[in-house]
Amino acid sequence: MKKIIVGQSGGPTSVINSSLAGVYKTARDIGVETVFGMRNGIQGFLEERIVDMGQYVRNDLDVELLRRTPSSYLGSCRYKLPEIKGNEALYDKIFDILKKNDIDAFFYIGGNDSMDTIAKLSAYGKEKGSDIRFMGVPKTIDNDLAITDHTPGFGSAAKFIAAMTKELVRDSLVYDIEQVTVVEIMGRNAGWLTASAVLAKGDDNEGPDLIYLPELDFDPKAFTEKIREIQKGGKKSVVACVSEGIHLADGKYVFEMGSHTDFVDSFGHKQLSGTAAFLSNMLSAELGCKTRSIEFSALQRCGAHLASYTDNKEAFNVGGAAVKAASEGETGKVILLERASDDPYVCALGRHDVNDIANVEKKVPMEWITNGGTFISNDFVRYASPLIEGEVSPIMVGGKPAHLVLPK
Amino acid sequence: MKKIIVGQSGGPTSVINSSLAGVYKTARDIGVETVFGMRNGIQGFLEERIVDMGQYVRNDLDVELLRRTPSSYLGSCRYKLPEIKGNEALYDKIFDILKKNDIDAFFYIGGNDSMDTIAKLSAYGKEKGSDIRFMGVPKTIDNDLAITDHTPGFGSAAKFIAAMTKELVRDSLVYDIEQVTVVEIMGRNAGWLTASAVLAKGDDNEGPDLIYLPELDFDPKAFTEKIREIQKGGKKSVVACVSEGIHLADGKYVFEMGSHTDFVDSFGHKQLSGTAAFLSNMLSAELGCKTRSIEFSALQRCGAHLASYTDNKEAFNVGGAAVKAASEGETGKVILLERASDDPYVCALGRHDVNDIANVEKKVPMEWITNGGTFISNDFVRYASPLIEGEVSPIMVGGKPAHLVLPK
Repeated sequence: MKKIIVGQSGGPTSVINSSLAGVYKTARDIGVETVFGMRNGIQGFLEERIVDMGQYVRNDLDVELLRRTPSSYLGSCRYKLPEIKGNEALYDKIFDILKKNDIDAFFYIGGNDSMDTIAKLSAYGKEKGSDIRFMGVPKTIDNDLAITDHTPGFGSAAKFIAAMTKELVRDSLVYDIEQVTVVEIMGRNAGWLTASAVLAKGDDNEGPDLIYLPELDFDPKAFTEKIREIQKGGKKSVVACVSEGIHLADGKYVFEMGSHTDFVDSFGHKQLSGTAAFLSNMLSAELGCKTRSIEFSALQRCGAHLASYTDNKEAFNVGGAAVKAASEGETGKVILLERASDDPYVCALGRHDVNDIANVEKKVPMEWITNGGTFISNDFVRYASPLIEGEVSPIMVGGKPAHLVLPK
Repeated sequence: MKKIIVGQSGGPTSVINSSLAGVYKTARDIGVETVFGMRNGIQGFLEERIVDMGQYVRNDLDVELLRRTPSSYLGSCRYKLPEIKGNEALYDKIFDILKKNDIDAFFYIGGNDSMDTIAKLSAYGKEKGSDIRFMGVPKTIDNDLAITDHTPGFGSAAKFIAAMTKELVRDSLVYDIEQVTVVEIMGRNAGWLTASAVLAKGDDNEGPDLIYLPELDFDPKAFTEKIREIQKGGKKSVVACVSEGIHLADGKYVFEMGSHTDFVDSFGHKQLSGTAAFLSNMLSAELGCKTRSIEFSALQRCGAHLASYTDNKEAFNVGGAAVKAASEGETGKVILLERASDDPYVCALGRHDVNDIANVEKKVPMEWITNGGTFISNDFVRYASPLIEGEVSPIMVGGKPAHLVLPK
């Protein structure tokens, strides 16, 4: 391989650039001459917005900075390739651009949709007899990819959630009054991130009292009663962590339950308040005590200053393994994490047909959801704890973490 | 001094326990036998909920852990002492408890209201000829105390805001689409924390585009037009940081402008959405582009894993200086920070009459608010930059920052 190209797609993570660094550094180490980057994923690629990464990632210090930079260095997109049939012109255009730039291998760092892109491109390449290799590098904070033990990006988001929940539980204990804190955590369909709030619990922290995942239906009345019960038991501060995607038995999301604002968006839809804001207001009215809502929001996926070393390292290795696989002639594959043991934590890398992972969603196993759907089992703790272990010391300049930035 | 007592009051900060550690460690170093702590401030003191801190802070490692623990270790309260006149029985009760426990000096870590407590207790002591000393140890993330150059707690909150805004600006640049991010930052009346968002700006980050403080009236129409103007200039991602306390010219808060929820609270008030949520909805309707709101929320005051070393050290020193002052016979005083120079940053400690600081609010100087009320001057950057410098490495256990916790 003399020339390769790499892109990033979908929502960013705290370590998505560590995978990019893994692709770049490994490629250079094995003698690849040029590592191109596509701006804004396949969308930018189609507009031939391509950069020579060697001009911007100049040395090992830049590689280290890149590994500590949150949010896709090359920019991202939410563009899904259409079916091949009937759209051959688009696919031909992609292969023309690849040929024009003498590109031997194409790497795409992303989630479900990105794996679909790799599946389609490798299928079309096979059909056309092309020897260009296509490799998927998984990432997503949501941890919802099939087959792989977990996804790069999840560990750092889980670490941020565990640490901030821990600090927040402390904050909630400061006054000697009845108070409910409702924390909203990302993950519309899969509860992996919300479940991670349980990791706040330990010798020095009581952790959250209640945890609700989107894997089960949510009952606002039962929720209110559960909190009333805890308060009656003498516990003044109650902390409940809920997924942004919790919904009623009929499928209606909690954030759709009223709390309409006065505005409509450009599609004419009434805008909605958040899940935690709705529940906090509901509890204040029902229980008559102080309540507050906290959204961890996008900070979960960009809080790279608190990234997990395990996650950052695995993200790097997954990128590097994709390059090695392509250099050995593999195509249409994705690199997976294969856990050998929880304690000590041992995790190997594997290669797998990308078709098996594209468009499949992995949820939290039902048996890990306990206490009538209000808490998380120790099996989850055993699974997730190793993934948040270790710190990536940020390179601090002027009191803030320094980042590597691609010029416009 | 053989026996002293210390309490914490008002909202917590990331370094409020570093001041507590400063009081404790310095007292022990100068030969104080017993350091009592009052649970939940003066409120717990009145219920004689008093602990011997030496039983729980057993060695220097515990002191280090205490310095890294967010949220008041001893618990807090929002209790303001009534006027002395007509409430002598209450004051006598306080002095009885002090005498009963042979307490020589009383230290109170807090903001405006806590300094008022020190002012009243020292006045009453003087009136009664008591030789118990009363000292104020300032803290508040809001930085709104008079006379002192800044307050312990502000630097760490400002560092959290600067770092998270920086990471968030990166997150906002990932897609090649028009998008507005509205960030809500604490500080109802004084804009110090919101102004700190400007510190995100640097070689590797464009920082926020707009910053609105509560020191000036806010005009939603002008705000919308300003963003439209920036978008017309070709900038796709716009980040606006607003104080939770921005208000119209008639004094009405932005968060009161509609967006009522379906619930009333226990006082019969309609509950309100947040400032950023309201503005984000408004902009989506007006501009027709993607918008999102982010509230930094309580994380600003409990994100101790990202505390400023400068702030943590000063918080410790201020606690220690209060003990030394009391041991020299001072009473009715507060320890202040007195800056000698910005660069290199040099800051000394001073003692000041607590009456001058109690109940006074310090706002951001008008001349530091620029661009027609939409940005912050370099004078602020010079002022605030040294306060966020340096890191306090958290003691990480199992991937999370470890804390020292007072048993119930």
